[in-house]
Amino acid sequence: MIHNAVILSTGDELTTGKVVDTNSAVIADQLFSLGVKVAAVLKVGDDPNRLLWAFARASELGDLIIGSGGLGPTADDLTTEMVAQFIGRQLIKDEQVAGSLKTRFEARGIPWTVNNLKQALFPEGATIIPNPVGTAPGFQVTVAGDKPLFWLSGVPQEMKAMLEGTVIPWIAAQRGTDSSEIYARTFKIYGLTESKLDALVKPIALPADGRLSFRAHFPDLTLRLAVNGGRERERAFIACCERIRGILGGHIYAEGDVTMEERVGQLLLQRRQTLALAESCTGGLISRRITRIAGSSAYYYGGAVTYANEAKINFLGVTPATLEKHGAVSEPTALEMSQGIRERTGAGIGLSVTGVAGPSGGSPEKPVGTVWMSIALEGRHEARQFHFHGDRERIIQGASQAALNWLRTILET
Amino acid sequence: MIHNAVILSTGDELTTGKVVDTNSAVIADQLFSLGVKVAAVLKVGDDPNRLLWAFARASELGDLIIGSGGLGPTADDLTTEMVAQFIGRQLIKDEQVAGSLKTRFEARGIPWTVNNLKQALFPEGATIIPNPVGTAPGFQVTVAGDKPLFWLSGVPQEMKAMLEGTVIPWIAAQRGTDSSEIYARTFKIYGLTESKLDALVKPIALPADGRLSFRAHFPDLTLRLAVNGGRERERAFIACCERIRGILGGHIYAEGDVTMEERVGQLLLQRRQTLALAESCTGGLISRRITRIAGSSAYYYGGAVTYANEAKINFLGVTPATLEKHGAVSEPTALEMSQGIRERTGAGIGLSVTGVAGPSGGSPEKPVGTVWMSIALEGRHEARQFHFHGDRERIIQGASQAALNWLRTILET
Repeated sequence: MIHNAVILSTGDELTTGKVVDTNSAVIADQLFSLGVKVAAVLKVGDDPNRLLWAFARASELGDLIIGSGGLGPTADDLTTEMVAQFIGRQLIKDEQVAGSLKTRFEARGIPWTVNNLKQALFPEGATIIPNPVGTAPGFQVTVAGDKPLFWLSGVPQEMKAMLEGTVIPWIAAQRGTDSSEIYARTFKIYGLTESKLDALVKPIALPADGRLSFRAHFPDLTLRLAVNGGRERERAFIACCERIRGILGGHIYAEGDVTMEERVGQLLLQRRQTLALAESCTGGLISRRITRIAGSSAYYYGGAVTYANEAKINFLGVTPATLEKHGAVSEPTALEMSQGIRERTGAGIGLSVTGVAGPSGGSPEKPVGTVWMSIALEGRHEARQFHFHGDRERIIQGASQAALNWLRTILET
Repeated sequence: MIHNAVILSTGDELTTGKVVDTNSAVIADQLFSLGVKVAAVLKVGDDPNRLLWAFARASELGDLIIGSGGLGPTADDLTTEMVAQFIGRQLIKDEQVAGSLKTRFEARGIPWTVNNLKQALFPEGATIIPNPVGTAPGFQVTVAGDKPLFWLSGVPQEMKAMLEGTVIPWIAAQRGTDSSEIYARTFKIYGLTESKLDALVKPIALPADGRLSFRAHFPDLTLRLAVNGGRERERAFIACCERIRGILGGHIYAEGDVTMEERVGQLLLQRRQTLALAESCTGGLISRRITRIAGSSAYYYGGAVTYANEAKINFLGVTPATLEKHGAVSEPTALEMSQGIRERTGAGIGLSVTGVAGPSGGSPEKPVGTVWMSIALEGRHEARQFHFHGDRERIIQGASQAALNWLRTILET
């Protein structure tokens, strides 16, 4: 039975501090939802002896080992080789993986080198873990007699796809609970800090075997409820979801694994609305977030990034008098920007953002973090002032999230 | 002599995935600069047995141990107690720390509880490490005979202040060295895959104690050369940098820790040029990358995200006839877009990008990943076709990097 897991993260970039390891937190979070405890997280560099040390320590501590990193084609990608050595197996080429790698490279016109073949080598007897979003597949072997070791790509989005596609379902099945027997719900939160959220949900009585977990990745905040234990728990799970909704109310912008821009996209489609943007301090980030979603051309017309004042005048028809009298970061300018982009594009909704992202450009009346936004649509034209805190990046991110959230609340009414 | 360090991070919030551990990366980065290798990073939860396990493993692997977390006043803050147990010492109250904690609490009107006294207890014989920015001081003891163990607050800014105020100077003094004894250089790479880069640099003879490492975070690729060992290695380090430059040539877009958008920003400033963008398939990402840099308003005018064809006509003056005859993804459209944005903004350089990001919208002549770009500046107006591979996100990212790199090469000539 699987009670304890050990997470391994490997790579010189971790032991030299060049990269912050987010993979182990993502894995720990998912294991927590399944009721598996993480006994330890071990990180070592790309060094044969350290890797062997880590495999040995992990096998003595965990019932299960999940590792990531070092599956690439370069000389410092040693993981597969060292796992094979650790379990006393040879490396064997998987012809199917080799073939698909070759096809993939040919399709891109990238010359096929001997290095790339490395990614088709696996310890004898390993089960291959498909990588749905990248080149290098992972693998599963058994260590220390009977302990499963899963090894995944170190690239965060590849790791996540392999974890959710293969590892989590495998563990759920082993624990005698297929994933349908775990009741889980994700609540996406807007407008609360992590500690405020924690304080709000702490009084909630959880069902037996129920767990609440948080994940904060600014500006996104996620709350997850997971309840193990089969159909008899379903009713308690549903009641607990209701309590969460009752307490968090309008702070929940979506349920399920959707981003704010996906939620806004769904609503624009449902309402058959179109959107155009006039961004100043957010510099194109809102546009970028909208357009990273496939199919966004159905509701997104485009927009203007009017960084300079002349751009606000030329592209949006903001009047020089308004800029002169009230400044670029002001209610009248925000109103003229949203109206201007709506009129010039013919989009149903015009959204504007203008503010002081810093670090310079602030003043006593308009300190760094002051942002005006405006929304113009049929029969409605309003502006709002916001204040964001932190460094330039945090202000830009916070403003983009607030703008999308405001648009969401308007579309939902 | 201190060669290897082990970093410990403790707390249930790490093993349940609620928090991403950034402390270990900050510590590793500072140790790397001092020439101290990190043998491993170990993370365990607030559990007595796991803590003892981690102390034992750390002592067997490192010449030095730096830990953080678990120094607070609550019941699950176990570190000090477990360290004392591990080295067989009693906990002793430090009267000076107790007095200053009491004063601090009184000044803030916080009631003094027995719990708070916990933070004035240290293993017998410990040296106290001041915490200049928070409540809980840390401590230094000796484990496994002669290995120093430093324990710091888990709060990131407190940890950093204690690390830089006490630990790093202590290590530097022990090593009898200042930090100038490690030679390191970062090369930022464009236009090579990780495996191609590896194959190119593999034949390079490295100085003794020299190490090449890679970091790929698409679309960014970084190569780093580090040479340990004092001034006698300086010449070998310089020669090795030269060999790398000779082999990689134009693939190096910068030396040092700069991004492509920072490099482009530097060049625009140096050349006293201004930029305006007309983005279609990249949806605002290039604009976003440019504007995340503080001070970009000095060279960035703004731009248009012309997602819809009408936006290309309205905002850029692309002619309907061109769109009808050649399509939105074509050389003539890209040329009209760059010219249009340059003329309408008065910026020195107009850059346009139009392509098929997918997953739909491809055709046999213009498959997904086909992108046309154009640059217009004084005396120069040209377009180029690119082909990118992968999913929508990868195509968008790849196109943004290629556009910035093309601009860079033009600005460098």
